[in-house]
This record gives sequence, structure tokens and C-alpha cells, in this order.
Amino acid sequence: MTLTAYLAGPDVFLPGAAGMAARKTALCAAYGIKGVAPFNPDLDMSQPPEILWRRIFADDMAMMRSCDIIIANLTPFRGPSADAGTLVELGWFLGAGKPCWGYSNSAVPFAARSRAQIAAQPDPLPGIQVEDFGLADNLMVEGAMDGSLVLPPDGISRPFESLEMFELCLRRLTAGGGSHRPQ
Amino acid sequence: MTLTAYLAGPDVFLPGAAGMAARKTALCAAYGIKGVAPFNPDLDMSQPPEILWRRIFADDMAMMRSCDIIIANLTPFRGPSADAGTLVELGWFLGAGKPCWGYSNSAVPFAARSRAQIAAQPDPLPGIQVEDFGLADNLMVEGAMDGSLVLPPDGISRPFESLEMFELCLRRLTAGGGSHRPQ
Repeated sequence: MTLTAYLAGPDVFLPGAAGMAARKTALCAAYGIKGVAPFNPDLDMSQPPEILWRRIFADDMAMMRSCDIIIANLTPFRGPSADAGTLVELGWFLGAGKPCWGYSNSAVPFAARSRAQIAAQPDPLPGIQVEDFGLADNLMVEGAMDGSLVLPPDGISRPFESLEMFELCLRRLTAGGGSHRPQ
Repeated sequence: MTLTAYLAGPDVFLPGAAGMAARKTALCAAYGIKGVAPFNPDLDMSQPPEILWRRIFADDMAMMRSCDIIIANLTPFRGPSADAGTLVELGWFLGAGKPCWGYSNSAVPFAARSRAQIAAQPDPLPGIQVEDFGLADNLMVEGAMDGSLVLPPDGISRPFESLEMFELCLRRLTAGGGSHRPQ
């Protein structure tokens, strides 16, 4: 049986979203995985926004239900953390008891990114804590992972649109290795 | 049977986190709900970070499993979207098939907040789309809701630490009203 992977990420917002989805599913195929990218080129974008977003939500939910695992692009997106939609989807797989894999192209720790965010857009109150466990994102993100969260092994951030860490994730996933998710 | 609600949110990072947890659980009790705040004052903070974060993750997971529903504080936190940990937890309840409720103290639409973020910290590439369906956060967040996401009804943002929208959420939740979540 072919493993089916939901390819969550902010990739859908990229100018070349269709091409990115095609490259990711082709890479998956090279590793014997069926990648399902939440990108629907046939979506009728002329529908009213209220209809359109519910259609996308329903389509994404159906795709998630059809998949065995998630491979989430957790590269920081407009703030210190990963894309909001991707995080809800990651949680969905965790709650559904399906394995969670993920990667980030950023080598900058979450705490440092949080402090940079505060410098650019100050917190609404003084004294709000910065979570600092030396992790790549909020502890719920790393805790959700089956394998470790895949990060640049050389400590050098990759470009936002790079697929090098995605491929490293596919390599680790298909090489096996047990879960170290705390229960 | 008393309904048990997991009180997710960035409240845990506030300087007065213990007091906030106590106020939220007291408000829940006033509405006949048992609120479970992911705040553990007995946590031994002298443990090594690697042990500590896994302990917190395991504790939060156990609390989530013990709860019937989530009431998520989705007020934007360090960026245009809600707190990352809260979003993973919201997804967990959605994936586990448990009802999801949430509120935000912000009356500013997600698209406007995203544009403000880009102005303060430019996107890594030009042309990355801003999701704009007139929603309060990414469509996966609003889509996850059972009732509607609770927002300031007068269009005026409340202070970050205000519990007015939390209480409005409790009121709507206990008043009943059907799910309009797309399936």
C-alpha cells in the first residue's frame, strides 16, 4: 500500500503555487509516497468569498481525511511561527492519531525569532514571556512530530521556497526510525 | 454531566498567568462548565529545557484528552495569527472530533493584520498572496469553529488581556445553537 501524505504549508500562497505543488508531489513519488497538495487549480475563484473559503476548508478536510500522514512545511511565515492554517492541520493529524512529519527552512531558533518580532511589532503588554526551550517553534509544534522536526543540519537557513529540507524529510521518513513523541 | 473545556491560549505567557487561569476557570464555573487551564504552578522549572518542554507537552496532551471541548483564545499573538501552540491544540480537537469554540479580542481583519506584518517585516519573496476572505484569521481557524468565532460585536478591539470576549463565548456556548462547520 502506498503511503499517502498531506503536503501542508504556506506553499499555496506562493506566486508559483501550482509549480511548487507539482515539484513536491514529484519528489514524493521519487520516494514511493503519494503526495496530496492542498492546491486546487480548478477552484472557481469568482464565487463569493464566504462560499469560496468554506469550499476550500471542506476540500482540505476531505484531503486530510484521505491521507495517512502529514508532511508540514513549518518554515516561519509572517511572524515567528509557522503558517496558521498549517498549524491547525498539523494539530488535526495529531488529534486524528495519524503520524506527523515536518520541516523548516529556518535555522534561527523560535526564541530569537520571537524577540525579533517583538522588536518590529512590540507586544501589547510588557512582560509577556518568550518561550525559550531552544526549539524551532512553540513546543506544541515540535511535540507533535513523529520523527524530529527536520531543520538545516548545517545550521544555515535555506531560502523560503527551497525544497531541500522537504526532501531531507522524505529521506528520513522513508528510512524509518521510531517515534519519540511523548505520550 | 459537567462539560469540560480546555482553555487554550497565549494567556500562559502573561505575567499574571496564574491569576488569569483562575479568573477563566471561575468564569467557566459561573456558566456551569469545568474549565481546564493548561497552567501548572507545580512544574519544576529547574529541570533541563529538553525534559521540561516534553513534560509540558505530555501534560497538555493529557489535559486535552480529558476535555470535551476547546475554548481557544485566538487573539493575534506576535504576528497576524493566533498563538502557534493554541492553533495546534485547536487542530487537535478538530481531528479528535471534539467541538471547537474560540474568540479573539481583535476586531482587525486577518488580511489587514497580514499587510501590517509585511510592512513591519517584509515577506521573503515578492508576490506571496495575502489570504483575504474577510475573516479574522486563516480560513482553517474559522472553519474549525463550531459556533462562529466570537469577535467584538461592536467592531472595537478589546485589550489583549480582556476576558469580555471569553465570557461572550461562554454565553453563546451555553445558550446552545447548532454547528455550522462545513463537513
